[in-house]
Amino acid sequence: MPTLAVLDEFLEFLRFGSISTDSSCKAQVDACAEWLRAKLTSAGLDARIMPTPGHSVVLARGPHREGRPTVLIYGHYDVQPVDPISLWHHPPFEPHVQDGVITARGASDNKGQIFSHIQGVTETLKAKGDLPVNLIFLIEGEEEIGSPNLATFLRAHRDELACDVVVVSDSSMVAPGIPTFTYGLRGLTALEVHVTGPDRDLHSGIFGGAVENPATVLARLIAGLHDKNLKVAIDGFYDGVQSMASWERRGWRKLPMNDDVLLRMTGVAALRGEKKFTPLERIWARPTAEVNGIGSGYQGEGTKTVLPSRAMAKLTFRLVPGQEPKRIQEIAAAYFREHAPPSVKLEIVPGHCGDPYLVDPHAGFGVAAQKALKRTLPGKKVALIREGGSIPIVANFKSILGVNTLLLGFALADCNAHSPNETFPVDHLDLGARLNRFLLEEIAKSGKTQGQAAATPAS
Amino acid sequence: MPTLAVLDEFLEFLRFGSISTDSSCKAQVDACAEWLRAKLTSAGLDARIMPTPGHSVVLARGPHREGRPTVLIYGHYDVQPVDPISLWHHPPFEPHVQDGVITARGASDNKGQIFSHIQGVTETLKAKGDLPVNLIFLIEGEEEIGSPNLATFLRAHRDELACDVVVVSDSSMVAPGIPTFTYGLRGLTALEVHVTGPDRDLHSGIFGGAVENPATVLARLIAGLHDKNLKVAIDGFYDGVQSMASWERRGWRKLPMNDDVLLRMTGVAALRGEKKFTPLERIWARPTAEVNGIGSGYQGEGTKTVLPSRAMAKLTFRLVPGQEPKRIQEIAAAYFREHAPPSVKLEIVPGHCGDPYLVDPHAGFGVAAQKALKRTLPGKKVALIREGGSIPIVANFKSILGVNTLLLGFALADCNAHSPNETFPVDHLDLGARLNRFLLEEIAKSGKTQGQAAATPAS
Repeated sequence: MPTLAVLDEFLEFLRFGSISTDSSCKAQVDACAEWLRAKLTSAGLDARIMPTPGHSVVLARGPHREGRPTVLIYGHYDVQPVDPISLWHHPPFEPHVQDGVITARGASDNKGQIFSHIQGVTETLKAKGDLPVNLIFLIEGEEEIGSPNLATFLRAHRDELACDVVVVSDSSMVAPGIPTFTYGLRGLTALEVHVTGPDRDLHSGIFGGAVENPATVLARLIAGLHDKNLKVAIDGFYDGVQSMASWERRGWRKLPMNDDVLLRMTGVAALRGEKKFTPLERIWARPTAEVNGIGSGYQGEGTKTVLPSRAMAKLTFRLVPGQEPKRIQEIAAAYFREHAPPSVKLEIVPGHCGDPYLVDPHAGFGVAAQKALKRTLPGKKVALIREGGSIPIVANFKSILGVNTLLLGFALADCNAHSPNETFPVDHLDLGARLNRFLLEEIAKSGKTQGQAAATPAS
Repeated sequence: MPTLAVLDEFLEFLRFGSISTDSSCKAQVDACAEWLRAKLTSAGLDARIMPTPGHSVVLARGPHREGRPTVLIYGHYDVQPVDPISLWHHPPFEPHVQDGVITARGASDNKGQIFSHIQGVTETLKAKGDLPVNLIFLIEGEEEIGSPNLATFLRAHRDELACDVVVVSDSSMVAPGIPTFTYGLRGLTALEVHVTGPDRDLHSGIFGGAVENPATVLARLIAGLHDKNLKVAIDGFYDGVQSMASWERRGWRKLPMNDDVLLRMTGVAALRGEKKFTPLERIWARPTAEVNGIGSGYQGEGTKTVLPSRAMAKLTFRLVPGQEPKRIQEIAAAYFREHAPPSVKLEIVPGHCGDPYLVDPHAGFGVAAQKALKRTLPGKKVALIREGGSIPIVANFKSILGVNTLLLGFALADCNAHSPNETFPVDHLDLGARLNRFLLEEIAKSGKTQGQAAATPAS
C-alpha cells in the first residue's frame, strides 16, 4: 500500500476537473498541468510546460548520460467528461476512497497509471540520486479528444524526444493480478456510405413500389459485407493477412479471458463471428467490418409512412498486420460502387486510417518488459496479449520517433474508464511504481543495441 | 370562373389558421367551424356544430325525402402546419391570387375542394329550391391529425348519418384537365423491429469480432425481405392477392402518368421494383415491404467506433385486395423471428393496420360518378385509377356506415398539399361545383337500389 502522503498527493491530482473536451474546464486543465510540472520538478526532474495550439504538454527529463538507453514514458492528464453525472455515487472530482478502491474521474484513465510511474521514478531518485536510464516523461492534455496536436509536437521536438523505446500504461490487465504485456494492436480504416434515392422523403403509399428504398438498398449492401461463415466478403480483403503464431493461439487459450468472461462483459445472448477462430482470436488477430452507425428516414415515436430519400452508414474496418488501411478503404469503396443498383446515387466519404501494430515480445525490450512484469508480480505467468483496439499515438511514435512502444497497462477491466464511477485500486499505485522501477532496471540491463531487436515484427 | 363574390367568400374561408395539431390555433379552428356553419345555413341547409373530444364536426343536412338516395359528402376544414414558414412567398393565411392560382395553406387540402361542393349545392338550391338527393355534409376538423374522433362520432350518430354512398374530394387528378375517379386504395400494416446485441454500446476495437453487430444483423434481415426479382420474400405474403383486371392494366398504360412523369416526381436516377409489373402497377395494385426508418449506433458528425447495442427499423407493408393486414403482420413477425440469429434479442412491436379498398367503377354509383365526371369535363376520357396510399376514413365509412366511398379529387399533383406555397387553381372552384351538381343528379338517376351494386369489389 502507498503511504498516506503518496495517496494524499494522488487525490490532489484527481481533484482537477481536467476535461479536455470542455472549454469551460480550461482553467482546471491548466492548473492540472502546473501541478504535474511542480510534482515532476520536486521529484528531481527537469520539468516544463510546453504550449500547443490546444492544451499543454508537460515534459520532464531525468539526468541523461551517454550510452544508456533513453526511455520515453507517455501518459495524459486530461480526462473524459462526467455525464451522465446522475449515475455517479460521489462527485467525480471529489475522490472517494473505500475498501481499497479510489473512485474519481480519471482514477485509472490515466491519472492513476501515470502517477504510479512518476511515483516509481520519485522513489528511485530519492533512493539512488539517479535513474538507470535516460528518462523523458511526455504527459499530454488532449488524449481524450484524439491527441490532435501530438503528432505536430513530436515532429517539432523530434531531437529532444529522441529515445530508444516508449512506455505507455493506459490500458488494463487481462485479469486482476495477471501481469500483462500487450504486443499487438489492430489498425483501422473508416468509411461513410451515403445512398440517395428520391430527391426528398416520399409518401410510401403514393410512390412505394415504383422506386427503390435507399434504406433497403443500404441494408443489402451491408448484408453483403459478410458471407455465410461471417468472413468479410470484399474481394481481396484478406490478402496478405498475417496468421497468428502457434504460441499465440496456445497461450491465449490458457488466459482467464474466456468465452464466459466475454459473455459477461458484453451482455450478449451468444458470442458469434468468423468461423474457425475463437472469440479472442477474432478480437485480437482477425480483421472485421463493423457498422458503427446507420440512419435513414423516420426514427421518432410512432409511424411515419415515408420512403426515405437518403440512408447513411458509418463503417470501420479493424485491420491486422499485413493489411494496408488505405488499400482496404479503396477496395471497400469499390465493393459499394460495384454492388449499388443504378436506381440510387452513392457517395463514399473516406475517414481516418490507422496502421496495425505488432512487436515481438520475445526479443529486445520485449524481454526486458516481461522480466519487469515477472518481478512486479512474482509467481505469476505474464500474459502476452494483443488488443483489438487501435492506439494512434503508438503509430505516431513509430513513424515520427522511429521507436516501438511497450504497452504495459495495469488498470482493471472493471475500472469503468469513460463511464460513471471510474475507479482505481489503491494498491495498484504501488504495483505501478514497482513496475516502473523494475522496467527501467531491465531496460538498462538489455542496453541500447539489444533493445532495438524488438522492432522486428513477430512471425 | 367563379364570381368575385364567390372568390371573396372562399378567401375568407382560407384566412382561418385552422391548424388542428397546434393547440394555440384552437380559436381559429373554432371560428372556421362557425364560419362554415353559417355558410351552410345561408345555403339553405340545416347546419350544426357537433362537439367531439377534439375539434368539432360541422354537420349539415339538405331536405330529406323518402325514396331518394342519401349522399354524404365528407371533407375537412382543418389544415396542415405551415413550417418551414420561411419558404412561403406570401403569408400562408393571407391568400394570394395571381395568374389564376390561389396560394394559401389549405387552398387545395381540403378547403378548395369542400368549398366547391358547398358552392355546387348552394347554386342548385338557389336555382331549384331542392336537391336531387338527400344530402349530408360531414366536415371534420381533425383530418390532418389522423381523425382520432371520427370513428366514435360515426358510431354515435350512425342513424343520423345513414346514407347510400359517401363522396370524398381530397386528392388529385391524375393530370391537369383529366377527370379522375379513384376506385381502389392500398391497405397497410406497420411493424417495428428492435434488435439488441450487447447490453450497451461496445468499443468496436475491444470487442469487435467476438459479438455480432445488431446493425449488421438487422441489415441482413431487411435485405432478406426481398428476393432477386424484388418480390417480397416472406412465406405466404402473396397468398390471396387479387390480380389486376386486364382493363385496368390496359387503361393505366394510356394514362399521362408515365415513367417519365414518375422519374420527374420522385427525382430518382432510375425506377426499379418488382419485376413483370410497370411502376404504376407496382404502386396501385402490388403490395410492398417498405423501410420507413432505420437507426442504430452513432449518427452524428465524424467517427465514433462503437459496436451498437441496438438497431431499430420501422416498416410498413402496403397491401392490396386479398391480403388481410393482421395476417401479414403476423407472417412478417414470424419471418424476423425465424431468421434472427441466436446472438441477438428480437422485439417486434406491431403497429396499426388498414384494409385495402376496391370498388367496381363500372357498376352502381361508380357509373354515376363516371357520367358526372364526363359532364364536368366534356370530351375528356375519365381516368380510372387506384391510389397507392391508404385513406383510413374510407374504411370507417365501410365498416361503420356500411357504404362505399366515391373518391373524386380535383386538386392537382403540383398543388403542394402539406408543403409551403400550397395552391388551388381558381377555375377548379367552378369545376368542383359543376362536378357536385352533375354527381348529385347522376346519383339520383341511378337510384338507391342500383347504386348498391357498387359495393361488390371489382374482378
